[in-house]
Amino acid sequence: MTQQLERILILGTGLLGASTGLALRSAGYSGSIIGWDKDGTQSHIALGAGAIDSVTSNPVETARESQLILLATPVYAILDWMKQLAPVLTNDHLVTDLGSTKAQITEAGNQLFNQRGRAGFLAGHPMAGKEVSGAQAAEAKLFQNAVWIFTTDENQPPLQPDAMHHASEWRAWVEKFGCRTLDLDAHRHDELVAWVSHLPQFLSTALTALIQDEVGDAPELTAVGGRALREMTRLGSSPYSMWRDIALTNTEAIAAAIHALEQRLAHLRENLRTPELREEFEQANHFRKS
Amino acid sequence: MTQQLERILILGTGLLGASTGLALRSAGYSGSIIGWDKDGTQSHIALGAGAIDSVTSNPVETARESQLILLATPVYAILDWMKQLAPVLTNDHLVTDLGSTKAQITEAGNQLFNQRGRAGFLAGHPMAGKEVSGAQAAEAKLFQNAVWIFTTDENQPPLQPDAMHHASEWRAWVEKFGCRTLDLDAHRHDELVAWVSHLPQFLSTALTALIQDEVGDAPELTAVGGRALREMTRLGSSPYSMWRDIALTNTEAIAAAIHALEQRLAHLRENLRTPELREEFEQANHFRKS
Repeated sequence: MTQQLERILILGTGLLGASTGLALRSAGYSGSIIGWDKDGTQSHIALGAGAIDSVTSNPVETARESQLILLATPVYAILDWMKQLAPVLTNDHLVTDLGSTKAQITEAGNQLFNQRGRAGFLAGHPMAGKEVSGAQAAEAKLFQNAVWIFTTDENQPPLQPDAMHHASEWRAWVEKFGCRTLDLDAHRHDELVAWVSHLPQFLSTALTALIQDEVGDAPELTAVGGRALREMTRLGSSPYSMWRDIALTNTEAIAAAIHALEQRLAHLRENLRTPELREEFEQANHFRKS
Repeated sequence: MTQQLERILILGTGLLGASTGLALRSAGYSGSIIGWDKDGTQSHIALGAGAIDSVTSNPVETARESQLILLATPVYAILDWMKQLAPVLTNDHLVTDLGSTKAQITEAGNQLFNQRGRAGFLAGHPMAGKEVSGAQAAEAKLFQNAVWIFTTDENQPPLQPDAMHHASEWRAWVEKFGCRTLDLDAHRHDELVAWVSHLPQFLSTALTALIQDEVGDAPELTAVGGRALREMTRLGSSPYSMWRDIALTNTEAIAAAIHALEQRLAHLRENLRTPELREEFEQANHFRKS
C-alpha cells in the first residue's frame, strides 16, 4: 500500500484513541501521529506508550496541518469537534470518528462536511472496547478480529476525490489492524446496537447496582458468586462519561429495548412455576444455534 | 488421610456427577466409584471417560453396598431419591448432594435422615458449573478454586458417629478437588443465590430469548455483537431441565429478585436523559471495589 497519509491527528487519546495509535504503529504506519486530550494526563500516557509521537496544545491548527483527523471522544464531544473543525478544514482533509452511535454523527457529517471545498467525513465505529477507560488500558491488538463499521445515510453524497483517497487508505489501515470492515446504514446501526450492545450494558449496570445495594456487603458474596456473576456484572464497571452520550443520542431505541426486556422479565417471573418457562429457555437456547 | 470410603455411588452422571468422579480420581481416591443415570448414554459416557468404574442397573441395591451416595441430579430428582433411599439405608451410610437450592433438601435431610438408625445426610452445593450439561462436558478441574457450600438449618441434629466420619472424609476430598468449603444456613444460601446466581441466569435467559426474537436472524448480528453480547447471553444456553427445579424450589426469592430488577430497569429507562443515570453507573461502579 502506498502511504499517502503523512500526518494523523488523534483527538481524544483514551482507550480507543491510544489503541488506534498503537495499532497504526503495529501495522507499519510510518507517518507522524499527533495527539490531544482534554485531560493532559491521558495524552502523556499515550505519548509514553508510543501511541502518539507528540502532544499538540493547538489541536485546531494541528488539524489543518494533518491529512486525517480521528475523533476518538464520547459522542457529544465528537459532534462539538465536527462543528469546530468543519469551517477551518478544506477538501484535502478527511475526518473520521470512533463514536458509539452513528445517526447524529453521520447526519452532521453530511451537513458540515462532504460538500465541495469542505473536508470529507467518514463515520466509523470499531466494535471493540473494554469496561475500563483511559490510555493506560490501550493496546495495539484491541481491534484484532473485531468488526469496524462505517456508516452512511440516505443524504450522503459521494466523497470528494482527495477525501476518497484518504478514506481508502484509512480502510486499508483498519484492515491491517486485524479488523473486518462493514458498511451499514447509520439508522440500522443504531437500532442494532441498541439490542446487542446498549441493552446488555444498561442491563448489566442495573443488575450490578441492584446486587451492590442488596448483597454488596454480604461477607459470603465472593464465595457464592461464580463465573456467571462475574460475567454479568463486568460491564457494571463501564464509565458513565461515555454511556451518557450514548443514552442521549440513541434514547428511543434504547428505551424500547429496555422496556421490552422489562416485559420479558415480568413474563418469566409470572411463569416460574408454569411450563411457559420451558418456552423461554428453549427460545434462548436457539440463539446463535440456528 | 486414611481412606475409609471404599465405595461411592454417584446417582446422576451428568456434568457435575461425572466431574466429581473425575475429580475424585484426580485427587487420588482409590476406592470404587459406581454410577447410574436415568439416561444410559450419560452413564456410559461417564464410564468411558473414567469418571466411574462401572454402571449399576440396580441403584438402590448398590446404594446399600456403598458408604457414600452422591445425588447429582436436578433438585426434584434429589428429593425423590432421598425418599427412596432413606428407608433402605442404615447408620453406616452417608448421603450427600450437589443440588442448586438447599432449603427443601436440607429440611428433607433432617426429616428422612439424620436420626438414630438412619443414614446421615449432608447437604452440599459446589459453586461451579457450565452452560452446557452432560457427561461429555465433565472435567476433573471443574471445581478448582470454587467454593463448595454445605448447608444446615435450625432443626439439624448432629450427625451420627459413622456418618460423621464419612462426612469428614468427604469434606477432605472436596478440599483436595481444589475447593474451599463454606458452611451456610440453607435459607441464607437460597436467598443469596437468588441474587447472585439465579437472577443472572433468568436475566440472561430473558435477554437471550428477546434478542433471538428481535434480531436473531439479522445478517449483521455476528458482526455487531461483541464480547459483551457473548458474555451476557452465554447462560442463555443453560438447560431448562435443571433450572425448572431451581425455579420451583426457590420461587419467592427469585421472583422478588426479578421484580426488583424490572423496577431498576424501569428507573434507568426513565432516566436515560437525566443526571440520575450517573447515580446508577456510580452505584454499579462500586461493586467489588468497596
